[in-house]
Order: sequence, then C-alpha cells, then structure tokens
Amino acid sequence: MLQLYFSPMACSLASRIALMEAGLDAHYHQVHLLTKKVVHDDSDFHGASPKGAVPVLVLENGERLTESAAVLQYIADLKPETGLAPRFADPDRYRLQEWLSFIGAEIHKAFLFPTFWYKDDGSLAKPRARIAQTLSVPAAHLAGREFLVGHSFTVADAHLTWALLLLRPAGVDIAQWPSLSAYLERMQARPAVREAIATEMALRKTVAANPA
Amino acid sequence: MLQLYFSPMACSLASRIALMEAGLDAHYHQVHLLTKKVVHDDSDFHGASPKGAVPVLVLENGERLTESAAVLQYIADLKPETGLAPRFADPDRYRLQEWLSFIGAEIHKAFLFPTFWYKDDGSLAKPRARIAQTLSVPAAHLAGREFLVGHSFTVADAHLTWALLLLRPAGVDIAQWPSLSAYLERMQARPAVREAIATEMALRKTVAANPA
Ligand SMILES: N[C@@H](CCC(=O)N[C@@H](CS)C(=O)NCC(=O)O)C(=O)O
Ligand SMILES: N[C@@H](CCC(=O)N[C@@H](CS)C(=O)NCC(=O)O)C(=O)O
Repeated sequence: MLQLYFSPMACSLASRIALMEAGLDAHYHQVHLLTKKVVHDDSDFHGASPKGAVPVLVLENGERLTESAAVLQYIADLKPETGLAPRFADPDRYRLQEWLSFIGAEIHKAFLFPTFWYKDDGSLAKPRARIAQTLSVPAAHLAGREFLVGHSFTVADAHLTWALLLLRPAGVDIAQWPSLSAYLERMQARPAVREAIATEMALRKTVAANPA
Repeated sequence: MLQLYFSPMACSLASRIALMEAGLDAHYHQVHLLTKKVVHDDSDFHGASPKGAVPVLVLENGERLTESAAVLQYIADLKPETGLAPRFADPDRYRLQEWLSFIGAEIHKAFLFPTFWYKDDGSLAKPRARIAQTLSVPAAHLAGREFLVGHSFTVADAHLTWALLLLRPAGVDIAQWPSLSAYLERMQARPAVREAIATEMALRKTVAANPA
C-alpha cells in the first residue's frame, strides 16, 4: 500500500486530497515538523526523508518520492481514468505543471513558508508586499472558470485548495478576490476534499506544529 | 519558431540551455526585469505575461507557457530523442519533476529570489540560515553520480546549473560541497551550456538588472 508522511494542514494535505479523489488507500504517517519525529513510533523523520519535509510518498516498491509537484502527478497517473491530471500527450499537462510550479514556488515558498516558519517582521515585509500581485494571477484565471486546468478537478486544484486555506491563518483575506473565495467554496464542497480537511483539522487540534 | 523571453543570467538561462541542448532554434526577447520592458521595442513585458517574470516561452501556436518546470519539460518533450527528459512512462520522469520542484522552490524561491530582490538584511537572515541544509540534498545525491536523473543530461541539470552559477554572486561558496563544484564544472564543459552562459554573460554586461 502507498504510504504518505504528512503533518496536519501542511502542504501534504494536497497529496491526501489527491489520494482520496483518486480513491486510493494509503497508510498515513503523521510527522511532527518541529521535532522531526514520526508521531506513532517517535522515530526520526529524517530516516524517511533527509529533507525533513512533508509530503513524502512511499511507493509500492519502497522508493520515496518528495516534492508536491512530483507526488501529485505520481498519484494522478496511478488512476488516469479519474482525470486528476491530463494525459501526457495532452497539451494541458504543461498547464498542470505550470500551476503546480506557481503554487509551490510563488504562493508556498515565497509567501506561506516564510510566514509560518520565519515569523519575525523583518523576514515577512517583502513577501507580504508581493502576495496580492501573486494571487491576482489565479484570481484572474479563475474568473469564469471552474477549475485551474481544463474542465474538471485536477491535482493542481488540490494544491491550490491547500494554499488558499492557509492564506487566512497567514493573515491574507481572500475575500478581496471573489473568484478565489468562490473557487475555494466550490472545492470544499467536494466530498473527498471535505473529508481530507476534516480529518486533518481534527488531528491539527492534537499538535502544536507549524502548518506550512 | 519558438520564442523565449529572458533576462541575462536570470532563471530563464535554464530554458536557453535546454533549447540549445535540444538543438532547437528560437527567437530570444531580452527583458529588463526592473522596468518590465522588452528591450528591442521598449514594449511592456506584462503584455507577454501578466506575471512579469521570465521565462516565458511562446509556443508555435502562439500560446505562452511560464514557470521553468513546465517550460523545461515542454522543451525536452519536443525532442524526446535527446533524452533531456525521461519519457512519460519512465519512473525517472517523477524524479525529474522532483528535482525541478526542489530547485525552483527550495533553491530559487526560498533563497536566490529574496537574495537578489529583497536585499535588506531583515529579509535575508532566515533564508541564508537554511541554504546550507538545502544544498546538502543535491550535494549528497551527486556524490558519485554524474547527473541529477539517470545517466545523462536532463533539463533538471540545466536548472541546477543555473542555480549553482547564481549562488556565488548570492554570497554562497559552493566549494564547501566538492560534489557540487565538480558537477558545475562538468556541466560548464558541455558546449551548449558554455555557449548559453557566454551569450548571457555578454548581454549581462549591457544591463543593470536583477539576476534571479
Ligand atoms: N517544495 C516542497 C516543500 C515542502 C515543505 O515546505 N513542507 C513543509 C510543510 S508545508 C515542511 O515539511 N517543512 C518543514 C521543514 O522544512 O523543516 C514541496 O512542494 O513539497
Ligand atoms: N516560479 C518561476 C519563477 C520565475 C522568476 O522568479 N523569474 C525571475 C527571474 S529569475 C523574474 O523574472 N523576476 C521578476 C519579478 O518577479 O518581478 C519559475 O520557476 O519560472
């Protein structure tokens, strides 16, 4: 069975959403990101991944895959019939990769990560000054579109759903972008998305970890 | 013909390297990243891409593709016989995506970007404290391996070559990681890589733009 190392409401939530949308069973290992311990056996998380970051997907052959953009595409390709990623010959596949990169680099690493991990004002003023311009890109794209890529839910939507959820605790009110808040509501109405979030929110209450 | 919007020694260098390694002709449009002007006609770069960032690849059908991870895979797949990306059915394709994400998010957005764009010490202390741990990941991987993925040059190597080149002006001496400096030397010995860098270094002298 697939295994996913995750931390509640961290970026690994997107991988959980993808697994649940794909209907794939997985064994979930909770990680405490500050202590780098795997919760169920108190083992060192660096044993699972030297990067010390979630998500880590353990494949059926025992290999470990990291980085949301790669993990999400891997999960989607296990169940091509779900349409979670356009097939490889489809030009939309590059649009999927474009969004995964934008969310992982420009929203997550340029903004959410410093906000939750660096905290002090010195580190945050510049990233904060850029975030509105960054969010205007998906906001414009989603005005009049239901999903990021094509006409159905893909793993790029799983990724963006996570990022939008974290913007509020990061101090950004997405109500400024009606297309983004309407999109987030639509995504949260999906049963798999709702269940993934409910599961992690319940676990979140049991830990005091950094969420991005 | 393909067209690439670039700025000398910015991350678009990886896309130029990929095009040259693939033997693909392209029309190159130089962008001034501070003024957001296209150099040859002084037009507004936002017309080419609302993101205002390079690389932007204009495809044969006129569509524009952004984000290095997507642009690099697109270029590689135009010439699958060059092996610049593992084919889609090859499990190494996900390793390629893993490295592209790591370089674009952890090295570029978490470190090089704040270094060159934010400049003030307050923004830089925390990213600087993390970069050695980040670089230890490719350093360990490249000890005893010639390339990031598989046994030949891929677009992930184009991406990392650019990132390593920028670390020195960003104040990080990669001599601390012998596997990284040996790798960078090997990559720079490749004719296409050497020519791409020489072209952009010559143009770099003509502008005072931010390089990352
Ligand atoms: N580029 C990685 C980012 C992974 C990442 O930053 N994960 C965070 C949680 S959202 C983490 O585990 N941070 C702990 C750390 O870096 O020490 C991806 O896209 O998967
Ligand atoms: N996530 C993007 C990053 C693109 C990026 O940051 N480009 C820089 C040059 S290396 C740029 O054009 N910056 C100008 C700006 O953001 O205003 C990618 O991987 O292509």
